[in-house]
Amino acid sequence: MAPGIAPVALDAMGGDHAPVAVVQGAIDAARKGHAVILVGPEERVRAELDRQRASWNLPVQVRHAPESVGMEEHPGQAMRRKKLNSIRVALELVRDGEASAAVSAGNSGAMMVGAMMVLGCSGDVLRPAILSVLPAAKGRPVMLDAGANVDCKPIHLVQFALMGEVYSRRVLGVAKPRVAILANGEEESKGTTLTRAAAVALSRSGLRFQGYCEGRDLLAGEVDVVVTDGFTGNVALKTMEGTAQALAGMMREALRRTLPARLGGALVKDAIDEIRRRVDWREIGGAPLLGVDGVGFISHGRSDALAMENAIRRVGEAARSHFTDEIAAAVAPAEALLAP
Amino acid sequence: MAPGIAPVALDAMGGDHAPVAVVQGAIDAARKGHAVILVGPEERVRAELDRQRASWNLPVQVRHAPESVGMEEHPGQAMRRKKLNSIRVALELVRDGEASAAVSAGNSGAMMVGAMMVLGCSGDVLRPAILSVLPAAKGRPVMLDAGANVDCKPIHLVQFALMGEVYSRRVLGVAKPRVAILANGEEESKGTTLTRAAAVALSRSGLRFQGYCEGRDLLAGEVDVVVTDGFTGNVALKTMEGTAQALAGMMREALRRTLPARLGGALVKDAIDEIRRRVDWREIGGAPLLGVDGVGFISHGRSDALAMENAIRRVGEAARSHFTDEIAAAVAPAEALLAP
Repeated sequence: MAPGIAPVALDAMGGDHAPVAVVQGAIDAARKGHAVILVGPEERVRAELDRQRASWNLPVQVRHAPESVGMEEHPGQAMRRKKLNSIRVALELVRDGEASAAVSAGNSGAMMVGAMMVLGCSGDVLRPAILSVLPAAKGRPVMLDAGANVDCKPIHLVQFALMGEVYSRRVLGVAKPRVAILANGEEESKGTTLTRAAAVALSRSGLRFQGYCEGRDLLAGEVDVVVTDGFTGNVALKTMEGTAQALAGMMREALRRTLPARLGGALVKDAIDEIRRRVDWREIGGAPLLGVDGVGFISHGRSDALAMENAIRRVGEAARSHFTDEIAAAVAPAEALLAP
Repeated sequence: MAPGIAPVALDAMGGDHAPVAVVQGAIDAARKGHAVILVGPEERVRAELDRQRASWNLPVQVRHAPESVGMEEHPGQAMRRKKLNSIRVALELVRDGEASAAVSAGNSGAMMVGAMMVLGCSGDVLRPAILSVLPAAKGRPVMLDAGANVDCKPIHLVQFALMGEVYSRRVLGVAKPRVAILANGEEESKGTTLTRAAAVALSRSGLRFQGYCEGRDLLAGEVDVVVTDGFTGNVALKTMEGTAQALAGMMREALRRTLPARLGGALVKDAIDEIRRRVDWREIGGAPLLGVDGVGFISHGRSDALAMENAIRRVGEAARSHFTDEIAAAVAPAEALLAP
């Protein structure tokens, strides 16, 4: 068992392949020493553990949660009405110190709302943000908000920057993270009313603030924390995903077309697989929710066992860093930075 | 000479490699029958034509424009103060019917402002937009606005949709273009105040409107006209560019690492080059400016001769389609569509 932290609570009913993939990911992680609590309908989860022949001495517990939240359900309503849903129970384990972190591949809005209700916001945090680790060739750049907050004000972007810096430094080990705001050009005159106000505030913040960065900088590794509203962040993330998919598709087709290409394709297969792994969201495992009093990860709805196993590993790293202790102090100056 | 249209006016002084690359692109296009007018300081342009041994019987004219606009100059000021700058003179040739279209790889803001001043907006168009043809594997999807208008209102997005549909149909030959608004999810509940208002209006427009699309749909070929504000559009475009570059870099590195990869890499080189060409902005040549009374293309600042030659060819296609005739009528219903 990984030392020093309580087990990770897993929403056994979250995601397209739940509970099978979640249980399998939990077993795989447990075999590597990570303690987990599977949260879901006890009988069903235990049956799945038996079916997958989990041995009794693995560090896997089950916590009963008879209800679950559907992918299409309204997050706030589901959280209020279903007091015993698996997301809520997992978050309560974190609140009560029985778990070090909660992970769900289910309804991400419900995870967000649930975290705010059950764990509460850290200090003056106005809105928690979803942080996404970007699959860059060098460094471990992060972008936030990746989709939780669509209509933002300058104070939100400033808080995202301050929280993202803590995560980059404490969890990812970047000594002095370079912070930039995503915009439509690098010059100060670019950006929107929103980004310009946030940029002025961040230039006074003491962060290593580099002004604006552009879409082409996201994977270049020259910025560590990219700050943006959840609308733009979501578009940028999915554009990366779509571009990688489109290029992979063109590649597959091109490598079938001629005999030399087919021969060469067989020889370069390992190299291509390595790139595929590097840009694979399953390797990243999930996106942490920043700004709540506890560690929560949102995993991809299509998560398979590998994705769940990686999420357990990554969320464990995050919990061991105790980065949440620093969030409240980090965001405290945000309001003053925006004063005229 | 390509039949039926006046020559294309080229800003000989625009772009990082002007005038050498522009003149070379003009010569290459002229050799394939495209008539061009090079606009710039006459002596300098003629000297470059001589240096590149352009033969006298090519359809290349020179029009004197002693001034030029720098990349960092304020577009409005430059346009007002330098009455004889090469962008302005090229646009005046279009206005006066001596040229069918104008192309510049120089200051894109100046091209935009100049087009509004010299050509004027079509009908009720409030703001011209930059349209970008996306390098998809199937179809010829376009996105607008690609960066001209950062803070938009619903009426702007509605006009962009109506203009983009005309371009897709008339210039790119898509019979009944599918139109969608770029957002952070496909459900109606997603998007911002801006996108929701525009979506309601477009659902009444008679266009083949498909609601929201996401970043991952941009290159998938299931949407023909992607509508967005210039901030988000610019971020999405540059994210595509950056992702393609990052993947190409990983690929280059992976194909050097092992002996089989090196051997295979040599065999798949042609296939990779073909993909590179397909996603190369130089092949696309430039982005049309929609909503002004005339045809104008903005080319990439880094345009080389190939990019300029392609721009001349593409802008010729656009001019021959006479799509601008339809823009005023297309945008006329925009205001009414937004009525409550």
